[in-house]
Amino acid sequence: MAEDADTLPPKAQFSEWYNDILWRAEIMDVRYPVKGLYVWYPYGFALRKHVYQRLRDLLDREHQEALFPLLIPEHEFMKEAEHIKGFEDEVYWVTHGGTTPLEVKLALRPTSETAIYPMYALWVRSHADLPLRIYQIVNTFRYETKQTRPLIRLREITSFMESHTVHATWDDAESQVESEIALTREFYESLSIPVIVSKRPDWDKFPGADYTIAFDTVMPNGRTLQIGTVHHLGTHFSKTFGITYEDEKGEQQLANQTCYGISERCIAAIIGVHGDDRGLILPPPVATTQIVIVPILIGKRHEDVLAAAQNLEEELKAAGHRVRTDNRDMRPGAKYYWWELRGVPLRLELGPRDIDAGKVIAVTRLGEKVSLDRTGIAGSVKQVLAAISQAMKAKAEEHVKRSLQPATTIDAITTALNAGRVAVVPWCGDRACGDAIEEKADSSILGTEVRSPYVSDTGGFCVICGKPGKATLVGRTY
Amino acid sequence: MAEDADTLPPKAQFSEWYNDILWRAEIMDVRYPVKGLYVWYPYGFALRKHVYQRLRDLLDREHQEALFPLLIPEHEFMKEAEHIKGFEDEVYWVTHGGTTPLEVKLALRPTSETAIYPMYALWVRSHADLPLRIYQIVNTFRYETKQTRPLIRLREITSFMESHTVHATWDDAESQVESEIALTREFYESLSIPVIVSKRPDWDKFPGADYTIAFDTVMPNGRTLQIGTVHHLGTHFSKTFGITYEDEKGEQQLANQTCYGISERCIAAIIGVHGDDRGLILPPPVATTQIVIVPILIGKRHEDVLAAAQNLEEELKAAGHRVRTDNRDMRPGAKYYWWELRGVPLRLELGPRDIDAGKVIAVTRLGEKVSLDRTGIAGSVKQVLAAISQAMKAKAEEHVKRSLQPATTIDAITTALNAGRVAVVPWCGDRACGDAIEEKADSSILGTEVRSPYVSDTGGFCVICGKPGKATLVGRTY
Repeated sequence: MAEDADTLPPKAQFSEWYNDILWRAEIMDVRYPVKGLYVWYPYGFALRKHVYQRLRDLLDREHQEALFPLLIPEHEFMKEAEHIKGFEDEVYWVTHGGTTPLEVKLALRPTSETAIYPMYALWVRSHADLPLRIYQIVNTFRYETKQTRPLIRLREITSFMESHTVHATWDDAESQVESEIALTREFYESLSIPVIVSKRPDWDKFPGADYTIAFDTVMPNGRTLQIGTVHHLGTHFSKTFGITYEDEKGEQQLANQTCYGISERCIAAIIGVHGDDRGLILPPPVATTQIVIVPILIGKRHEDVLAAAQNLEEELKAAGHRVRTDNRDMRPGAKYYWWELRGVPLRLELGPRDIDAGKVIAVTRLGEKVSLDRTGIAGSVKQVLAAISQAMKAKAEEHVKRSLQPATTIDAITTALNAGRVAVVPWCGDRACGDAIEEKADSSILGTEVRSPYVSDTGGFCVICGKPGKATLVGRTY
Repeated sequence: MAEDADTLPPKAQFSEWYNDILWRAEIMDVRYPVKGLYVWYPYGFALRKHVYQRLRDLLDREHQEALFPLLIPEHEFMKEAEHIKGFEDEVYWVTHGGTTPLEVKLALRPTSETAIYPMYALWVRSHADLPLRIYQIVNTFRYETKQTRPLIRLREITSFMESHTVHATWDDAESQVESEIALTREFYESLSIPVIVSKRPDWDKFPGADYTIAFDTVMPNGRTLQIGTVHHLGTHFSKTFGITYEDEKGEQQLANQTCYGISERCIAAIIGVHGDDRGLILPPPVATTQIVIVPILIGKRHEDVLAAAQNLEEELKAAGHRVRTDNRDMRPGAKYYWWELRGVPLRLELGPRDIDAGKVIAVTRLGEKVSLDRTGIAGSVKQVLAAISQAMKAKAEEHVKRSLQPATTIDAITTALNAGRVAVVPWCGDRACGDAIEEKADSSILGTEVRSPYVSDTGGFCVICGKPGKATLVGRTY
């Protein structure tokens, strides 16, 4: 198996590398016999578990986790006109139970507004019930007609975190949007993934939202990947589903709402942003295995070394690290390849001479090698893992910074995009000019009101009409 | 809300009590607009989370968690004849994506053999790959035509743990069955739920299994609830799906398999077995909140008491307990009702006099009251919680023991069952006699080879034909 690493395509061939690493590193098996559905291997599933635990820990500060049904009856699903228009082509319909046609067709949730909001209409009674902040992490379904891609474009999204909040006023809901943005930043910070926040253009907002704020990251090939969205729903859905509350004066008011989602694309981002020619590089906070111990068994001191390795493993586990000792009968070099491919952030090597010297050799997945004192190892390992996170973040930030390319003509946009970059373009905000940009540069308008340290809104003139414009992200998207 | 407890039906009216407690204690909302689908409230979801974490901890000792798709293509689903016969009437079918009819109909998994085993056929190559032990916790679907009941008979089973193992030999698979039985016993032990293990009669085994071992518990009304099953699959599925391995001699062999499932019925059992007229009684290891602190705010020492309560909460949290302090502006008595309804196993009361005396008043959900020293409280609370688990177990065991009633005539069986008991009946093992018992006593044969301290197989003569028979459980089931 160690030989696999030798045949991993270079990361510069990103599509091939991505498809290959998924099975080589045992993240997903793509051979399931339905298009767009994939199997999580145990190793990948453990990564998913740690990533979503991170997300839960952040959400649990002020949200509560719950669980709503997968199946949505047609009449509920069809209630909100704009919303259904946005999803009707991609909804899977359950029409039969056994051989019996169902009286009411059931939709597999593509997202859960229409499953959750009829319940919210029952739950919300008074201003004292607000804010209500609930999330669930569930499988959702989209009948994608475009090319599917594991973790990125799926027919079964296995890991959709969707949060749905209810507030008294539009402003309260807006504050919630800001607080979800901060939460999402903190989440991706812990994964060392840089995000660019922007407001999606009106025609690309969530069906039924007042506005949509999106999080994008830049993949190695320059394509942007949307890895989160927060929607201010205003009163669109509360009107439709009758979510009202009695205010302090005893009057019934329509509630304001937000919803917010993060899917397993967060794991696609981890894989794509951080990996290298040798395989995955997993962020220490969420790595399936954070530390692998490789005992160097030379000469007569096998037992001695194995005992020392076990001792080391126990000490690190007690300190809360996820550690494995690789005692397999293989050359150390083959073991190194094996764990590098799987992205383990830190390798500890321990041989007879290290034991005698009271040392442990630490090699980071980024290639740094240091000798650590065996005494106090749990603390120094913690520092090394934090430094790895920092270095991963810096490298990824550097990539995003380099990717953002100001462009004031259509040619410049096209050149930037062809070179694997994301263009920052002055745009007046009109739909017609937006359509022209998208068409002429074979691109997508990602958003305005860009929040990124690398984009400053210095104004400028719309690349199409020449009227005053504002800095707008234009890219090619997944 | 505290008044709710006053109107909870007595537990002797078990059906009404069960339906009522679910919403009063905020476990599930049954008002979702599709029959057989329910919503987990945050409080219920947290209970579910702790229960399934317990199960995961046990499984993770020798299994690995993974995740397979929900949708199974018709051709895979239809491969194993016996299996499909067992499920065809209750499978939900997805027939359309948007308005487009699908080329291949997709089944919502009622269980995942036919989703997982095509992958196992790819994964298992050599004897070195065995044993393979994987589980997943997923939503599964059954188009139930019988009356649905929250947590018990569902159309969406939201929390199905299914384990699927692969072994070289039939005997290896049998050892795995025994090891799953031990694991399940340990799981229910931690929930203070007694289980009776037996072998289901042939006509009631899992479709495609060599044999089925089931776990039943006895609900307050005497109906048995199946809360787990382990199936020895032999080579039925490996033949169909081509799961073979190369043995030590280089020859291809059919693999032997087991599968094993536990659903959210484990939570129905917690609710049904332990609750009382005042509400839920949650087992300490999995209770959403294990300890509630109620500060007794009398006279001028409000701040003093609140600070002492906070201090107490922090100390108990640091010791790993799930604790909440109820600072609401309500009478202490109303708070007691509130938390009793929700099943919190331990209440700590703290007033000015307790503070002065260096004491904390501890009241268990079973009604015992003791005064604990404030010093060393984390340790003594741990002991009290363990004692609560023990007492719950003893009470539940006593109920099962009293429920088991030897019966050697059809009349005696009927009398026992009508009295809310489970009959232990000598049966020869023939299908015809089994059918006669089931029909004449309006009962179900649960199983033979009963493993329970309260059932000894002393032999006897079949109640129908008079031939030598063996102790068999006969009951009325959910």
